[in-house]
Amino acid sequence: MSKVPCIAIVGATGAVGREILTVLSQRDFPLGNLRLLASHRSMGTVISWRGTTYTVEKLGEESFDGVDIVFFSAGASISQRYAPIAVSRGCLVVDNSSAFRMNIDTPLVVPEVNPHALVDHSRLIAVPNCSTILLCVAIWPLHQRAKIKRILVSTYQAASGAGAIAMAELAQQARDWVAEEPITKQFFGRQYIFNVFCHESKMDQSSGYNNEELKMAEETRKIFGNECLEIAATCVRVPVLRAHSQAVYLTFENPISVEESRSILKRAPGVEVLDDREKNQHPEPILASHEDPVLVGRIRQDLSRSDGKGLALFLAGDQLRKGAALNAVQIAEAVLKG
Amino acid sequence: MSKVPCIAIVGATGAVGREILTVLSQRDFPLGNLRLLASHRSMGTVISWRGTTYTVEKLGEESFDGVDIVFFSAGASISQRYAPIAVSRGCLVVDNSSAFRMNIDTPLVVPEVNPHALVDHSRLIAVPNCSTILLCVAIWPLHQRAKIKRILVSTYQAASGAGAIAMAELAQQARDWVAEEPITKQFFGRQYIFNVFCHESKMDQSSGYNNEELKMAEETRKIFGNECLEIAATCVRVPVLRAHSQAVYLTFENPISVEESRSILKRAPGVEVLDDREKNQHPEPILASHEDPVLVGRIRQDLSRSDGKGLALFLAGDQLRKGAALNAVQIAEAVLKG
Repeated sequence: MSKVPCIAIVGATGAVGREILTVLSQRDFPLGNLRLLASHRSMGTVISWRGTTYTVEKLGEESFDGVDIVFFSAGASISQRYAPIAVSRGCLVVDNSSAFRMNIDTPLVVPEVNPHALVDHSRLIAVPNCSTILLCVAIWPLHQRAKIKRILVSTYQAASGAGAIAMAELAQQARDWVAEEPITKQFFGRQYIFNVFCHESKMDQSSGYNNEELKMAEETRKIFGNECLEIAATCVRVPVLRAHSQAVYLTFENPISVEESRSILKRAPGVEVLDDREKNQHPEPILASHEDPVLVGRIRQDLSRSDGKGLALFLAGDQLRKGAALNAVQIAEAVLKG
Repeated sequence: MSKVPCIAIVGATGAVGREILTVLSQRDFPLGNLRLLASHRSMGTVISWRGTTYTVEKLGEESFDGVDIVFFSAGASISQRYAPIAVSRGCLVVDNSSAFRMNIDTPLVVPEVNPHALVDHSRLIAVPNCSTILLCVAIWPLHQRAKIKRILVSTYQAASGAGAIAMAELAQQARDWVAEEPITKQFFGRQYIFNVFCHESKMDQSSGYNNEELKMAEETRKIFGNECLEIAATCVRVPVLRAHSQAVYLTFENPISVEESRSILKRAPGVEVLDDREKNQHPEPILASHEDPVLVGRIRQDLSRSDGKGLALFLAGDQLRKGAALNAVQIAEAVLKG
């Protein structure tokens, strides 16, 4: 790969695509040419980036000629169809969709957790689900110290996880509510403002878990390289524009104290401890929005256990940033660095 | 007590006080005279109820003469001071505050769970914390079948739990946000609209648990009459006006299937099962608002366990109604019925 790679972004007009542009700029990512790709619908959209204007091109089989790295963030079916083409053209593909995550020969990477998985790849690397990334960044350092046996997590997920249209609908519902107009329910089909509801992803009829919950379980096991990790999730949408939060209960093989956990997390990469019991300053999605680190707080013993092997914590992280765009760019940086 | 009791409501202008009036009316609660009491600030407020107008009187030591039942919903310090006076005047006191809940000789009652605790009382009965009530109604029927050993719960709590002023501030913040004005932060001191934050109750500096979480643990143990019940809670405010939700993980002494759990909950008093996996119809605070039953759904095996002794569920219940006013009125009804 040339020293100054040519980059393409598939889904450049979406919430994650736009965040990738922001992250590339903020990190001074070295790049030669930039190609913005999207569906027919967004073709011709003009996007200004670092003082240059780019016109969004329609994605096609010929879009990858001369491109070194392609970021895919246009959903699983687009990745399914076009990522293999990009790979066959010699590109490195960093895929934000769920299309290839659980393939045995596709690395699924959170650079703070399993960078070693990047050593051997076939030019296709998957970015995990956003909730999975935020969870893994926060608990991996504790796992290394005391081995996590079980994870029970309940999420507080923002609109951004469902894309720019979902964020716009939540904002519109706020305007509708204030104007005392009927609530717009085109995207979610229900009231979202002043409400919470179970995650809208497809539900497995037999187990009763939705796809978001199943992803958190299976992807975390793959990233941790531990098939025995016991994990259950409850994924819930809350009326927040961006940044997800999670209430996490951990059970360890070995005892671990609150003090040690806090000290481990304070030096952990990608983590910022915000755990002020006196001022009640703890992670909030508003504080995590547009920021890189996963905020971790409310670190305390699991009161339901007396063996010192249980810990509770609360985290918040920007779903578009570390949950998607930043993690993707970090993967590309790590590969470039070799 | 006379057959048609005289009723007083302390805190009549507050969110819970007003809801008590609604509940008394809807249930055709038999009553003679009605006396509305509040602080100096609300004195003189005129409230219309069942076609009659009542003027709010200032609470004082003489307020309880001729009164049979007093509902207290004006905070712990008011209850602490005036409830003993009302009791000494011969009133039955139903107290919504936390003042007496953990006193060994004060019954703490959820009528669907421990009505037997009403048999022997000294005219002072405590209404549990709202989150505790909603949790107990939903899980008690399962406890009776398979004995709950451990509860891990994460809450999604509405503004209403902090009172009418908190609800008004959340609504104001929505208007501020839409108008692109600075967000009003008088009550909570932070942005609530489009945000979530850890419960604002006082935090125990040593354990790191806030009072709301500690109440859920100790009150549930008292109501269940089981000092060994293992329980930990994470209490979080979400931008919802009324009705709390909870994600609950239960561990049982004995195995219990999803099918049996659902069938038990379908016939449980005070519970409505809303658990449609196909249509993704599950409990939401909007659906629980102004309704009596606690909605329970997402009933499924705890995927982190393979022994059939773990269950996960999601519930929503109106915090002002079953979480406070309705539970208080039900207690009075049960005592009147003898």
